[in-house]
Amino acid sequence: MNRIMKHKLTGTAASPGYAIGRAIRLEQERYVPEPRTVDNAEQEWQRFREAAERARTELQHLRDRTEQRLGAEKADIFAGHLLLASDPDLLEGVRLKIAEERQSAETALHEVAQMYMDMLKAMDDELLQARATDIGDVSRRMMNQLRGVANREPEWTETGILVCEDLTPSDTAQLDLNVIQAFITEIGSRTSHSAIMARSMEIPAVVGVNGATDRIDDGEWVIVDAVEGAVIVSPDDDTRADYLARKEAYDRRRQALQRLRDQPTRSRDGRQVELAANIGGISDLEKVLENGAEGIGLFRTEFLYMDRADFPSEDEQLQVYRHVLQKMGDKPVVIRTLDIGGDKELSYMSLPKESNPFLGLRAIRLCLGREDLFRTQLRALLRASAHGNLKIMFPMISVAEELRQAKKLLYEEKQSLQSQGYSVSESVEIGMMVEVPSAAVAAHAFAPEVDFFSIGTNDLIQYTMAADRMNEAVSYLYQPCHPAILRLVKWVIDAAAGQGKWVGMCGEMAGDERAIPLLLGLGLHEFSMSASSILSARAQIAELDYAAWREHAAEALSMSDQDQVNQWVRRQTSGPSSL
Amino acid sequence: MNRIMKHKLTGTAASPGYAIGRAIRLEQERYVPEPRTVDNAEQEWQRFREAAERARTELQHLRDRTEQRLGAEKADIFAGHLLLASDPDLLEGVRLKIAEERQSAETALHEVAQMYMDMLKAMDDELLQARATDIGDVSRRMMNQLRGVANREPEWTETGILVCEDLTPSDTAQLDLNVIQAFITEIGSRTSHSAIMARSMEIPAVVGVNGATDRIDDGEWVIVDAVEGAVIVSPDDDTRADYLARKEAYDRRRQALQRLRDQPTRSRDGRQVELAANIGGISDLEKVLENGAEGIGLFRTEFLYMDRADFPSEDEQLQVYRHVLQKMGDKPVVIRTLDIGGDKELSYMSLPKESNPFLGLRAIRLCLGREDLFRTQLRALLRASAHGNLKIMFPMISVAEELRQAKKLLYEEKQSLQSQGYSVSESVEIGMMVEVPSAAVAAHAFAPEVDFFSIGTNDLIQYTMAADRMNEAVSYLYQPCHPAILRLVKWVIDAAAGQGKWVGMCGEMAGDERAIPLLLGLGLHEFSMSASSILSARAQIAELDYAAWREHAAEALSMSDQDQVNQWVRRQTSGPSSL
Repeated sequence: MNRIMKHKLTGTAASPGYAIGRAIRLEQERYVPEPRTVDNAEQEWQRFREAAERARTELQHLRDRTEQRLGAEKADIFAGHLLLASDPDLLEGVRLKIAEERQSAETALHEVAQMYMDMLKAMDDELLQARATDIGDVSRRMMNQLRGVANREPEWTETGILVCEDLTPSDTAQLDLNVIQAFITEIGSRTSHSAIMARSMEIPAVVGVNGATDRIDDGEWVIVDAVEGAVIVSPDDDTRADYLARKEAYDRRRQALQRLRDQPTRSRDGRQVELAANIGGISDLEKVLENGAEGIGLFRTEFLYMDRADFPSEDEQLQVYRHVLQKMGDKPVVIRTLDIGGDKELSYMSLPKESNPFLGLRAIRLCLGREDLFRTQLRALLRASAHGNLKIMFPMISVAEELRQAKKLLYEEKQSLQSQGYSVSESVEIGMMVEVPSAAVAAHAFAPEVDFFSIGTNDLIQYTMAADRMNEAVSYLYQPCHPAILRLVKWVIDAAAGQGKWVGMCGEMAGDERAIPLLLGLGLHEFSMSASSILSARAQIAELDYAAWREHAAEALSMSDQDQVNQWVRRQTSGPSSL
Repeated sequence: MNRIMKHKLTGTAASPGYAIGRAIRLEQERYVPEPRTVDNAEQEWQRFREAAERARTELQHLRDRTEQRLGAEKADIFAGHLLLASDPDLLEGVRLKIAEERQSAETALHEVAQMYMDMLKAMDDELLQARATDIGDVSRRMMNQLRGVANREPEWTETGILVCEDLTPSDTAQLDLNVIQAFITEIGSRTSHSAIMARSMEIPAVVGVNGATDRIDDGEWVIVDAVEGAVIVSPDDDTRADYLARKEAYDRRRQALQRLRDQPTRSRDGRQVELAANIGGISDLEKVLENGAEGIGLFRTEFLYMDRADFPSEDEQLQVYRHVLQKMGDKPVVIRTLDIGGDKELSYMSLPKESNPFLGLRAIRLCLGREDLFRTQLRALLRASAHGNLKIMFPMISVAEELRQAKKLLYEEKQSLQSQGYSVSESVEIGMMVEVPSAAVAAHAFAPEVDFFSIGTNDLIQYTMAADRMNEAVSYLYQPCHPAILRLVKWVIDAAAGQGKWVGMCGEMAGDERAIPLLLGLGLHEFSMSASSILSARAQIAELDYAAWREHAAEALSMSDQDQVNQWVRRQTSGPSSL
């Protein structure tokens, strides 16, 4: 291989940071058995059954270990694999191939698994394709048992940088976080599974690196530059020294931020606000606590409903909500009720095809039409309320009738639970998302009927600008600091203030350093963002003067476009942060 | 036939009113020739060519007559038919069948036409299906010429009620408006071609009447109740007397309204506003003038671009715009630049498929990316400006950058035209639609840069409520009188007033009798609606007290939902109108 060509590879920076270390190649090749016929089919079938049984034992062990290390959610992957390893159709398929075609157990397993995988992969459904990956995982495990090859559960003794084609859920659940310094994957984007995992583990990752598996050998030195999105293979000494310096500066800044972890969030002139985190499930909790979040501003419960065969039961939901509440202690936890529809679908729930799903039957609109599933979630939430500082939030409220109906169902379930002897907290705050323009414009109509608002800027901007945020052709209209958006934020805060209610924000804008000074000035009480942004936001706010930004923000409201606002903010900000 | 069963049929009231008269059946059966072979193919082909030539002469005549009676737009239908009657593929198909299969000219024509029609009908494309109807029309005309049967151009001596399967464009263009009292069609809906025609002709029509062609004989008495959507066949004397009374009351009210035709629009206490009409093309002009519109508040130019093979040229557009301006004299004509995309597509312009087309690349967004076609329209508009009181309006403006860019192109074309010696009016007002929430919320940012605003409520409500107005599942959110919508209207009017600019409204809300008192009270200057609503709106406004409604409307702004507003409006309105 040409050393010059090997030198630098580029990809997508999926989780920021630097790492320098030796490559650890994760081999993911699939064993293809030589076709072989057997004389004693009965005996061959028995051999397969024993191998399958050993694979199941291994999976149970793996599930239990994962639950201890990474929580119940990650462990569920192996519970799913266990079910697959006992799947009657799969086992019967293998049995028939052995009994009727006299194939070896290896060939039979290979062919049956391949058939299922091909079938699932052919369907245009992400969930089914993920299921194909699971079948690949499980059949490899059984195959190794048949072949007497140990299933390689990574047990690295030395730290290193993981290099692989892609990371399956099964791979990631097994990774030893103590030894993996960074990821490099051949495929994937910022939103692929491996990228999300890297961010939640807060280790640097560059994904979609074309040629990574060809050009990086096991044990070779590599530099991961997950700030620029580059990988340097076999760096020379100068390059190494350069990156070592960059890494140290980067880590120093992170440590400085770490000192803010247990500090309150206060502007230079003493205005205190709350910095909370957005989460999708239990696995995000660790980073929430590590980054000093003062609460959870948005728990997106739809992830509980995804990647499953049916709706989660009341008890299943209760366990998750209770776990989050207990972990957060007396810190506030805002749980948003189910927001599906739009671009979020459930494989087991058929929804009508819509011409404009973002303007269709989603979130509270859907839940009010499907009271059965909504009531189940409300009961789970109410039962969990006894275990922490719960706040319940309804998504996509457009008119007061919807809010009233949602509250009515909540109160009915509360009474029903209490009459059944369940303990339900009496101090659960009820709030709503402000993400539909009507809710912002007529915030006065909602303020008396809620305890708090949380502004969902991703949707609010999309609807206010009438521009699909997923559509590249109109992405120039996604303007968080446009005066129209700032005015809506201001009106929501004013309407709430008139009723003594608090206002949070849980869209991306809340963590955007260009928007934070304006939001502080407009009087926002709670900023909810991804956990990894909290410490730098706290550092930024510590340098801002609230009194001055009240005036600057008021000025911005009467400007004519976002450019003017952005220039204004830059001019008021006294250069880069000292951190 | 059973007389009792014949009694009453139901359908959809597509254009309101009553009619009592004798049925005129429009026969639309297709002649199927007996298969027959010929000896002298050359002679048969000659016979066909002569028949085709006579059909073309007939079509030219028809085209010219239609242009005189109904305008160039309707006449275009026959220009299209003329092209079809000379289509080389069609003629060659017939020639081959005669020359090689020795078929008679009739059979050859029948088979070739049938083949094309089947092919076109099989495609899931409305335009192509309409083209199949055209081929049916043209081949019937040729067939009649071959058979020596006169093409029946309806020449009724007695007035009557037209009963038919459906009305093709060719049928409607030939109808004698002096004899047709009403329509009854077997198929169709409120939005089908025949329904739209009926409304533009302002004659009563009931469409989608199952069994109409079976159950109504030519010459039979029928009552058309296009208020309820019913047809009574062979009514008894009592029924006839009853409907005669209803028809007279209905017509009396219409005549009372007619007296308001040339009156200005004034509230009881003297507040003068302007009632304008929305139009889609030249054919709507007659009703605009008949109904006493004080101007055109919205000319939707996209209809010029539809049902064609390519973009209309600058000169073609100029002719249409000039015609409208000249017809309207010194009355204002607001022409909106092209609004395609969203749910409006052009067959000859491929647009990317979007997940949420209502939130996608449409109207001004599209035009700014396709400067060539936008500049052509701007030039046509500027050249037309010398011929009347033109105002140009840009649709779907979301941010000031878009407005500035559109104005820049307009000024460039103006200079270019003037340097070429064209005369361009110096007093053309430039305005924008307010239909995206950002434009309403930040109206202050746009007001200094336009001469007027026109609020497009159909889209504004849809985006403000984040509810697709075509989606039945969320139709409960389409609430024109919701306080959020009223507030947006108010802010637009206030922002404009601050700069001395006027505000119109061209969505359905402007003609909605429940909204009119509020809109008057909020200070709206111009109400643009379908021509047929103008006289009743003028009558309604004449009974309203502006000073009182200023207060009532201000009160409504702080209400919490549409129900409350509607009840409030009802309570302030002193019972039904005396008209």
